[in-house]
Amino acid sequence: MAPWSGLTADELALLETTFWSAGGSRHAMAERLGFSKSKANALIAGLVEQGLLAEAGLQRSSGGRRAENLQLHEGLGVVLGVDIGATSLDVAVLRPDLSVLAQHCEPADVREGPGVLLARVRVLMRELLARCGFGPKQVIGIGIGVPGPVNFEIGQLVNPPLMPAWDSFSIRDYLREDYAAPVFVDNDVNLMALGELWRLKRSLPNFLVIKVGTGIGCGIVCHGEVYRGAAGSAGDVGHICVDQEGPLCHCGNLGCVEAMAAGPAITRMAVQAAQAGESRALAERLRAQGHIDAVDVGQASRAGDAAANAIVQRAGQLIGQMLASIVNFFNPSHVFIGGGITRIGPLFLAALRQSVYHRSLALSTRHLEIQYTPLGAQAGLVGAGVLAMHEALKARGVAP
Amino acid sequence: MAPWSGLTADELALLETTFWSAGGSRHAMAERLGFSKSKANALIAGLVEQGLLAEAGLQRSSGGRRAENLQLHEGLGVVLGVDIGATSLDVAVLRPDLSVLAQHCEPADVREGPGVLLARVRVLMRELLARCGFGPKQVIGIGIGVPGPVNFEIGQLVNPPLMPAWDSFSIRDYLREDYAAPVFVDNDVNLMALGELWRLKRSLPNFLVIKVGTGIGCGIVCHGEVYRGAAGSAGDVGHICVDQEGPLCHCGNLGCVEAMAAGPAITRMAVQAAQAGESRALAERLRAQGHIDAVDVGQASRAGDAAANAIVQRAGQLIGQMLASIVNFFNPSHVFIGGGITRIGPLFLAALRQSVYHRSLALSTRHLEIQYTPLGAQAGLVGAGVLAMHEALKARGVAP
Repeated sequence: MAPWSGLTADELALLETTFWSAGGSRHAMAERLGFSKSKANALIAGLVEQGLLAEAGLQRSSGGRRAENLQLHEGLGVVLGVDIGATSLDVAVLRPDLSVLAQHCEPADVREGPGVLLARVRVLMRELLARCGFGPKQVIGIGIGVPGPVNFEIGQLVNPPLMPAWDSFSIRDYLREDYAAPVFVDNDVNLMALGELWRLKRSLPNFLVIKVGTGIGCGIVCHGEVYRGAAGSAGDVGHICVDQEGPLCHCGNLGCVEAMAAGPAITRMAVQAAQAGESRALAERLRAQGHIDAVDVGQASRAGDAAANAIVQRAGQLIGQMLASIVNFFNPSHVFIGGGITRIGPLFLAALRQSVYHRSLALSTRHLEIQYTPLGAQAGLVGAGVLAMHEALKARGVAP
Repeated sequence: MAPWSGLTADELALLETTFWSAGGSRHAMAERLGFSKSKANALIAGLVEQGLLAEAGLQRSSGGRRAENLQLHEGLGVVLGVDIGATSLDVAVLRPDLSVLAQHCEPADVREGPGVLLARVRVLMRELLARCGFGPKQVIGIGIGVPGPVNFEIGQLVNPPLMPAWDSFSIRDYLREDYAAPVFVDNDVNLMALGELWRLKRSLPNFLVIKVGTGIGCGIVCHGEVYRGAAGSAGDVGHICVDQEGPLCHCGNLGCVEAMAAGPAITRMAVQAAQAGESRALAERLRAQGHIDAVDVGQASRAGDAAANAIVQRAGQLIGQMLASIVNFFNPSHVFIGGGITRIGPLFLAALRQSVYHRSLALSTRHLEIQYTPLGAQAGLVGAGVLAMHEALKARGVAP
């Protein structure tokens, strides 16, 4: 049973608001919920007594009595966040306020299938929990991000192009053997969007997060909530066409932005440049390592290699071209750019921005901000924690 | 003062739910609002007594006592709906249940500016009201659709490309001289989306409406509400690029879908086909009339003219190509196609569909339905009525 399983709707709303406002004052919380001061104080007193809420000292600016900030009580337990990338695996134990207690990251190959990968996730979870002195019973929720389209209601991947072996596999059932806590699964970039939404304390209602790695995906926040689409595939922007006569993509179409500008395409362009004698730096890398990856291209670009610069700019420009269409359609206030490839060098973001501002309508871009994800590489993991807490609070009625 | 200005939040919620469920049973209404049976019955009795709600006879299927359907009372007054197109003007007087009492449609040129056009709107409103025996005081709300981006909060157009003279003009202030009722202004295709949302009784939470006429626009319904974007320009899809080397658009970019597939582009392709001797039918039209329009192309296509067929298919294919990107991004359950140009012939919808299904991901299109707007040419006007009722109910506190 979740520690909050017997609470009233008002009490749960207060916990949920406390989670999202991360250290807000009791006054602000009451106001947001439309509760009177006395009602809020009574509810808070009850929740503090039950060990669910904690008061976090006087608020500096107010000076008055009783203006204590609120936060979820540490004694509630911990959440587990897992961020499964195409080539990496991140697992963390987080407090209810999403501060990280323990974290581990390692390379992984998602194509090995759910059996291999999730067995490793299971081991890491147990080790990390033990390291901070917790056991499976203290886990109140588990959030997992995966690099493919997810049917959110049932927590399964649906036709994932990068990880076909995971199709219809129930991650939830697999982990149920070890944990009584509820397990929630979502697309990795949806979780990045959820993480940023939490960091922003929901202050921006309409924004996008673009992730560029092995593939290209987009997380959508609309009307203040993550939008997943009619079949859970919203944000699947990697297969938007940017060149009718472009190369063949693994999806069967020509000129998908993913086939032309994501990690593997950058590697391919770099190998071509090295072999064609266009770049001494890349040719040396290829000789020394036997392969080139996006990090090598980024280093060569930073060192002023013209061919590497052209590759970085070409990738940014193509992704910006795709993004221009989306900005015209969706008119977001912010676009946050994340994922390993996007840190390939400053020319990438510059080229991407130029492409968007050039092709989008003035009205759509007048106040548009395009920047790196403020949570950086932690966005997916924080998002997994947000998913776990947010959904676990909502699912209190469901016996775990 | 609106007739409902003194009501409680619960009473207003009941009126609003009655409006959106259009003739639903009192039982269904209570359930949707989470009211107990006795609470709902007491509220309903009060509203019936005040002449705001009406009972509409026993529901056929139930047979029981008290299962009467509810609707807004006719005595509430009327709403005025106005649909300003680039080349047409529609004005209607509607009952609170949005049945049309009187309607008038005529050609108009939006480029003549707000002075000329709105003076005509004013005259038509007065005439139509008089024709059904109402005066300005019985008007409870006015909804107006315009073919350009709107700042919804202040009811003004912002940089409208098709109607520059309207930039920052306050339609609301202009009509305030004649009517005490609140005036709401929105983009024409947002209103089509709102109209369809009402027709569907909000049963589809995520769908799109595409309008093709002089320009191309898209109305977005997300999480069960019309989505307008950060600056009100969401759905501005006409300037999405479908050909990097396409013709110059009036926005300054190359290959915008609007410049290649909307009404004026179809006319241009038809004139070219006529002058190049590719179509006897179109050449005859051009000779006889001195010009060709999309209706002529549609007629020639239906009569089997090969050049006209190619034009219709080309337009559908290009719009479908743009739509494929949007479907990948937004994953809607339905796309409704409307606006004069889309009825140009069955080949148009067929080519559009083929283009979307060919280019979008399988998961996005597996359950996707692409069809004509069920409300047809009335969608904009019905949407204007929905806007007027919906917003007027919400704005009850604001003195009109």
